[in-house]
Amino acid sequence: MTAIYGKVALIGLGLIASSMAHAMRRSGAAEVISGTSRSAETRAIARELTLADEITDTAAEAVRDADLVVLCVPIGAMEAVARDIAPHLKPGATLTDVGSVKRAVIDAVAPHLPDGVHFIPAHPLAGTEQSGPRSGFAELFDNRWCILVPPENADRKEVARLARFWEALGSNVDEMEADHHDLVLAVTSHAPHLIAYTMVGVADDLRRVTDSEVVKYSAAGFRDFTRIAASDPTMWRDVFLTNKDATLEILGRFTEELFALQRAIRTGDGAHLHDYFTRTRAIRRGIVEAGQDTDIPNFGRGR
Amino acid sequence: MTAIYGKVALIGLGLIASSMAHAMRRSGAAEVISGTSRSAETRAIARELTLADEITDTAAEAVRDADLVVLCVPIGAMEAVARDIAPHLKPGATLTDVGSVKRAVIDAVAPHLPDGVHFIPAHPLAGTEQSGPRSGFAELFDNRWCILVPPENADRKEVARLARFWEALGSNVDEMEADHHDLVLAVTSHAPHLIAYTMVGVADDLRRVTDSEVVKYSAAGFRDFTRIAASDPTMWRDVFLTNKDATLEILGRFTEELFALQRAIRTGDGAHLHDYFTRTRAIRRGIVEAGQDTDIPNFGRGR
Repeated sequence: MTAIYGKVALIGLGLIASSMAHAMRRSGAAEVISGTSRSAETRAIARELTLADEITDTAAEAVRDADLVVLCVPIGAMEAVARDIAPHLKPGATLTDVGSVKRAVIDAVAPHLPDGVHFIPAHPLAGTEQSGPRSGFAELFDNRWCILVPPENADRKEVARLARFWEALGSNVDEMEADHHDLVLAVTSHAPHLIAYTMVGVADDLRRVTDSEVVKYSAAGFRDFTRIAASDPTMWRDVFLTNKDATLEILGRFTEELFALQRAIRTGDGAHLHDYFTRTRAIRRGIVEAGQDTDIPNFGRGR
Repeated sequence: MTAIYGKVALIGLGLIASSMAHAMRRSGAAEVISGTSRSAETRAIARELTLADEITDTAAEAVRDADLVVLCVPIGAMEAVARDIAPHLKPGATLTDVGSVKRAVIDAVAPHLPDGVHFIPAHPLAGTEQSGPRSGFAELFDNRWCILVPPENADRKEVARLARFWEALGSNVDEMEADHHDLVLAVTSHAPHLIAYTMVGVADDLRRVTDSEVVKYSAAGFRDFTRIAASDPTMWRDVFLTNKDATLEILGRFTEELFALQRAIRTGDGAHLHDYFTRTRAIRRGIVEAGQDTDIPNFGRGR
């Protein structure tokens, strides 16, 4: 294919950025890829893997002459990076990001940008429980959604170009308003992650059940929670701190509902439990039918 | 191999029983397999699949001359079945079950048994989100734990024989006391399932986020919960009603911990969140190292 952007700069070289590098290579979506990380160790690994055409020591060097700059750092680091690169951005370049929260990224980044730079926040809904420059792979975005959150006055031509870029990386592309994005993700991602972290923490904390029992007998359901709860701690700390309101709202609803089910257990209300568990089955069917998960039992483990 | 039991009777023909039938065939652990289900439709499917050597219309017929009788019905149905089959059990036979709660099964079944029958409750920690006679497969128990819960006065020779039987079906075998079993499973299975059911119910219930958004964007974490929340409603209703105390205790601990994390989010205590999320990562490593889950990212989806 004809490249969609001349030079693409990746700021940060973790799971998402390294997967983007592989997917750009696979698709030819970029002519040249530059990359950088604050960590010298990460830069050394990236050079060893030849993740990009050039791995620079500073973000300022990486973004020089770049047509697309992608912020792939934890949300809490976005503002400092934006301030750092702003004077070095090429006029007419597009700046985007891959953060899991959008309102906070907009508030942190937008004030620092010079006129003539197109800021189009984005969020690829893809990831694994692994992190770092070695964890990336080209297929990460295949058939996953990437949500663009363009400002109202965005240049539609540049929005369409960024959409084509993500499609070339394998994604389906949608647009959403920032606050609605943050609420939807609080439901489908942020609250589930906090709940999984909590359950794993509780298991680790009990005195009457040993850690080795928890590990040994985890196949009974618990192990699914531990996968989610193995995700990157810095990234997730920043998600919760920056999507505070929506996450707390969903957790509030969750707690209400959990109390109602606990009451049903306590009072022996089997009909309530059975109805509830029947309803939740339908959602699973919808997800499998929409191609967003496998229908192989146990995610195909042990078959 | 030489058969471990002459005739094995399966009462109930769902996921566990049909998997046992396949695994007995694979291993030769039984000379003859009989089976029955309360549902005529299930019996017809079992006959079509030739799941057992004989599919009988009643439990009384199925257990006739059986050396091992396995109760594979929801926990709430165990007492009625025990009362029903008790007069027909062969003297010296072993009666076992596969229920996810052990104290309640013992209380429901033991009073009905004639002298000379060995009652050795058991719980294979294996399953998928699917159910019914077509969902079984021979590998379900491979490298999974099966916990035996023999009474104090059990005949050790018969306990050892039942252990050999489960090993022949692919399991690793452990022994535990009934109440401790119920507490361990509340942590590794029952509380996680209720939490997953709750989170999926909350997502389904919101008015500000549509079902189609929940389905579309589920890959961000939520879909793992929906797999668990697609499990059999009747089985799980009975689990919660019969393991009430341990489940409510763990859910109480869970709620405390969740409130502490919510407070950390509200007050912006990033260090607390980061520490917590770092600790939970270690548990995941332990589970992968113990061979109880895959270390392939995302359970191998999309790679």
